[in-house]
Amino acid sequence: MPFFEITARSGDARLGTLHTAHVDVETPVFMPVGTLATVKGVPQDLLEELGVEILLSNTYHLLLRPGTKAVRELGGLHRFMSWERAILTDSGGYQVFSLSDLRKVNEDGVEFRSHLDGALHFLTPESATAAQIDLGADIIMAFDECTEHPANRDRTRRSLEMTLRWAKRCRDYFEDHKAEAPFHSTLPAENAAKGAPPADRNPSYNPNEGSRSLSQALFGIVQGGMHADLRRESAQRTVELGFPGYAIGGLSVGEPRALTREMVEAVLPELPADRPRYLMGVGTPEEIVEYAALGVDMMDCVLPTRAARHGLLFTSEGKISIKNARFARDESPLDAHCACRVCARYSRAYLRHLYSSNESLAGLLNTVHNLSYYLDTMRQLRHSIKLGCLEAFVSERRSQRLNSPALSERGDPA
Amino acid sequence: MPFFEITARSGDARLGTLHTAHVDVETPVFMPVGTLATVKGVPQDLLEELGVEILLSNTYHLLLRPGTKAVRELGGLHRFMSWERAILTDSGGYQVFSLSDLRKVNEDGVEFRSHLDGALHFLTPESATAAQIDLGADIIMAFDECTEHPANRDRTRRSLEMTLRWAKRCRDYFEDHKAEAPFHSTLPAENAAKGAPPADRNPSYNPNEGSRSLSQALFGIVQGGMHADLRRESAQRTVELGFPGYAIGGLSVGEPRALTREMVEAVLPELPADRPRYLMGVGTPEEIVEYAALGVDMMDCVLPTRAARHGLLFTSEGKISIKNARFARDESPLDAHCACRVCARYSRAYLRHLYSSNESLAGLLNTVHNLSYYLDTMRQLRHSIKLGCLEAFVSERRSQRLNSPALSERGDPA
Repeated sequence: MPFFEITARSGDARLGTLHTAHVDVETPVFMPVGTLATVKGVPQDLLEELGVEILLSNTYHLLLRPGTKAVRELGGLHRFMSWERAILTDSGGYQVFSLSDLRKVNEDGVEFRSHLDGALHFLTPESATAAQIDLGADIIMAFDECTEHPANRDRTRRSLEMTLRWAKRCRDYFEDHKAEAPFHSTLPAENAAKGAPPADRNPSYNPNEGSRSLSQALFGIVQGGMHADLRRESAQRTVELGFPGYAIGGLSVGEPRALTREMVEAVLPELPADRPRYLMGVGTPEEIVEYAALGVDMMDCVLPTRAARHGLLFTSEGKISIKNARFARDESPLDAHCACRVCARYSRAYLRHLYSSNESLAGLLNTVHNLSYYLDTMRQLRHSIKLGCLEAFVSERRSQRLNSPALSERGDPA
Repeated sequence: MPFFEITARSGDARLGTLHTAHVDVETPVFMPVGTLATVKGVPQDLLEELGVEILLSNTYHLLLRPGTKAVRELGGLHRFMSWERAILTDSGGYQVFSLSDLRKVNEDGVEFRSHLDGALHFLTPESATAAQIDLGADIIMAFDECTEHPANRDRTRRSLEMTLRWAKRCRDYFEDHKAEAPFHSTLPAENAAKGAPPADRNPSYNPNEGSRSLSQALFGIVQGGMHADLRRESAQRTVELGFPGYAIGGLSVGEPRALTREMVEAVLPELPADRPRYLMGVGTPEEIVEYAALGVDMMDCVLPTRAARHGLLFTSEGKISIKNARFARDESPLDAHCACRVCARYSRAYLRHLYSSNESLAGLLNTVHNLSYYLDTMRQLRHSIKLGCLEAFVSERRSQRLNSPALSERGDPA
């Protein structure tokens, strides 16, 4: 069975399945960000209940705390955080470029100081890949240079050339070491097995049987800044290297939304139709629908979780700031059209009180609602592709378009 | 049916049932503290799952945020926080004396400044009772002066005399206004009704039928500082005023544990055997067992919840600080003898990582475990009373006595 299967199409959009080492993941998929092996504030069973099939963790953050070797010794990331569904780790490249001080880049790799304690670290394509093998996520990413924005053609070309050389080094290192992922030597976590598994939990991973991938999948990353021709060239040459999936990186870094879309539209035709396409760090509820319609299969963004912690909530009637005084006497649920457990139980007045009083329950409840909103959107999207009526769905969503929030960012700060 | 029924005894301990306006509560009971209409970090469905039948909220804090009138307009505390089980509110007396600045006490009441914004407030026995009627908790408390420690006999006597005069004013105000509690005019919260009720949820309150109390229950509070004879006198004269239950206040304010116990032992024989006895602000897991054995029926303390937020966890093998480096590679559950969902799923290594990384999930998971430990202790205690073997249970717990933590305090800071 191939790593990725496409089961339906509607326009350019694809309904597919990622057969990861742990579970099957339906695409198009939105991956919540669980920076430090936790989606901030939300226990794993609630993520399961929300229908999260894959989440993203950040290698950079885990490298600093608790350390990728420590996670390996504890059986890998799945066992460490008691999560039996799929995980994707980024390579650390983006955070090295956005969070750390005193960054020195050379052909070999990047020297940087930890944003936590100033300690000196050095990451290379090989060590970033080794760190991700230690973590043992189902999908791991090549170590790239995230080209700064703005960057001129020359600078962008030099950067994408180095990213290509690094991609080859990542691929070569991975091919030599892919048998070393911790899930090859561990059974499903005993702790997790102690609890009654939720009815909808996927069957446990068994490395000795079945049709799942027996290894991690390493994805290549397309760079090329805001230059469409360089984007196309980066895509073509990354594809030549050969990966089971391709990401579009270096976007959502402060450029106008129209330019982001232009770059995505330049890259997608260059990517093989039978491989998953992952647009990194995107986006708003409207954007994830639009990009899926263009043929993107995977996305991630801190927006739903980070906005929730700032009291910004996505609803079927638009984005609201729960701290607004008009909610102080509002007994209605956050979103009358939402079936999540927060909307089923609590009033806007109570959620406003929790947020205004700086109560930590606000973070949990707001995050559960926003993730529910995103995951519902993806479910509706997949359903529309299956029914072949995606165009109608996209039009409907466009007509209720919210103001574009100025919040879309990648890489949760620690 | 009386408000309180005793169904079994073992030594001086009593197994009983409080027939509150919302649900029946089995005693001896430990009440988790939900200062601002939330047990910090824990969603209400998890409290239900843990078996919490009654929780405590602080009138002082709710008076400042969101305001007791606001809560009344939103249908009362039960509806506001979507909690259909029982609630007890304190009178605000303790927080006025421990948290606020510029306190001026006279016969009429207490003028104080909010610890949040310095705004001037005035609480009297009447207004504190009115605030608690607005909140609509099942059990409310008389407004007392919490005598400071240490206090000499003269000062203590003057203070307890005023508390007695205030208790009468509270009782008189309550008798005139008890029909005004918000649950007399509201049906169960629509929001809560939307969600599928947990299988073990108690039947909804219906003010028009059944055997429950149709009103709140106002408890009197015994003061008397650290003087056993004054404690006895305060108890006798509070009982003469006549309340459906009696609290022992003004303890756990910094005095040695032996002195606390001496005061409790002085008071208990003076309280009527057929009324519930509530020891305020107590205690450690060992103390709650010891006091229940003496005949105390109700206790509350911030210890399990506050300690959890500081990474201090109660286990069957003693108290541990989860931040300790020795847990960094520890794959075992927090407490192998605990059936809570945290121990069923997560390792000590993961919990340590969350706490060390300042992740908000640490607060939720630690609190759920500590509350589970306390509520399990109370369940075992009640079971031992029912079986008539409480003495053996108390001996067993004494033999595993932990070091007495220096954490027992009342009244969560906001």
